[in-house]
Amino acid sequence: MNLTLTTIDNLPLINPGDNLGEIIADGMQKQGISPQDGDVLVLAQKIVSKAEGRLVNMTNVTPTDEAKKYAEITGKDPRFVELVLRESQSVVRTAFNTLIVEHKLGFISANAGIDHSNVHGDWGKDSDWVLLLPENPDRSAEQIREYLQEKFHCPLGVLIIDSHGRAWRNGTVGVTIGLAGMPGMVDLRGTSDIFGFHLKITQVAAADELAAGASLVMGQASEKKPVVFARGFPYALREGNLQELIRPKEQDLFR
Amino acid sequence: MNLTLTTIDNLPLINPGDNLGEIIADGMQKQGISPQDGDVLVLAQKIVSKAEGRLVNMTNVTPTDEAKKYAEITGKDPRFVELVLRESQSVVRTAFNTLIVEHKLGFISANAGIDHSNVHGDWGKDSDWVLLLPENPDRSAEQIREYLQEKFHCPLGVLIIDSHGRAWRNGTVGVTIGLAGMPGMVDLRGTSDIFGFHLKITQVAAADELAAGASLVMGQASEKKPVVFARGFPYALREGNLQELIRPKEQDLFR
Repeated sequence: MNLTLTTIDNLPLINPGDNLGEIIADGMQKQGISPQDGDVLVLAQKIVSKAEGRLVNMTNVTPTDEAKKYAEITGKDPRFVELVLRESQSVVRTAFNTLIVEHKLGFISANAGIDHSNVHGDWGKDSDWVLLLPENPDRSAEQIREYLQEKFHCPLGVLIIDSHGRAWRNGTVGVTIGLAGMPGMVDLRGTSDIFGFHLKITQVAAADELAAGASLVMGQASEKKPVVFARGFPYALREGNLQELIRPKEQDLFR
Repeated sequence: MNLTLTTIDNLPLINPGDNLGEIIADGMQKQGISPQDGDVLVLAQKIVSKAEGRLVNMTNVTPTDEAKKYAEITGKDPRFVELVLRESQSVVRTAFNTLIVEHKLGFISANAGIDHSNVHGDWGKDSDWVLLLPENPDRSAEQIREYLQEKFHCPLGVLIIDSHGRAWRNGTVGVTIGLAGMPGMVDLRGTSDIFGFHLKITQVAAADELAAGASLVMGQASEKKPVVFARGFPYALREGNLQELIRPKEQDLFR
């Protein structure tokens, strides 16, 4: 078994309105990559958000009283907090410099995934610009998948990832925020182990495992490569969505 | 950038007392793998535990009153609960079928990582055998690393992984339980992004990202391959340990 994660190099900076599928296909072709049935393209959230124009200038944001309250607790810019709250279903934990929320999309993350770094460029040179997550990352993944499948005439998966902090452990890891054409979870219940025992660990967050591995090669700093081509994903492609990976609140002992 | 994760195939079943370094080196050589400076060997916890004889027959375990109490809450075998408690610093959450603890090693996991599947073999055919985690996985990793480095004459990393459930998200992912000769966390604070901004996400759980990717190719069921050879880990090797990845309790909002 062999899994190869390859960055697509020499991609242009992404601008609002860009056709990401086309840009990725171009990059793959320049690099001599011919996708096969079962390959997966992994995309950093940031380029999807940029292509979709999810930039907001905080100069135009007026914080509510609730935002001001959380800004005081966290020490964050009230306008930034306002944007976080607008993107969220609920506030999960707060502390100085920490604002952990349940995003409208269902997952728990710091600052609703709103990002300040790598944002400006053609859209302004000051630090008031921030970048929201894609409005519907599963849909974004599906659109890119449709483009790539039509281009390359084979079934592909598309995975959109972000870096999240975690309970209990230090540091961030890449996790899924949207996907198309591939499983989020793989259910091995009923499968036997090599001695014929029923397995105890039976639901594997396969998309998140791929997200973490791909995040490793993307890098987080100036070497960042926002698209990774994955060959050897070991599970069959199928329809899938983010929701498979979200633990329902009533089954979650840690909110 | 390219990360390749390759299973070492045709490894024998591991028995207590086996020299894992030697077995892995043999497997690599049979597969024509010549390691280079910077390569990492990723090992499933289970084979390390087996080689170290961490098998326990529950027939010999007498549960305390505390174990009986948690057994009642969780519906688990009181002898199994007793072993979990002996391996743990504290109980974090309980529910029916759920016993989440802080392991003596510092991480949070279900059942202190004690495993029932894939355990028997030469040691008994009934289901009373369970497998504890290695006593000191960093030390286990270091011993295997020393063997491999002497054999292959180049610096290598060794990572021991297990599959853990998570707060907030469904399914298990591979995570680090021990390591040697490689970073657990990579600190990018002070690094600039591609526009010269200071990064917000700056501490990357690099070992856990590799653990998740390697777990994906190991598989969880009958196709399980407990050793993965990783080429292309993007950070420089150095001394490292599990503790880098453990969030101290006083900094953890989710216990």
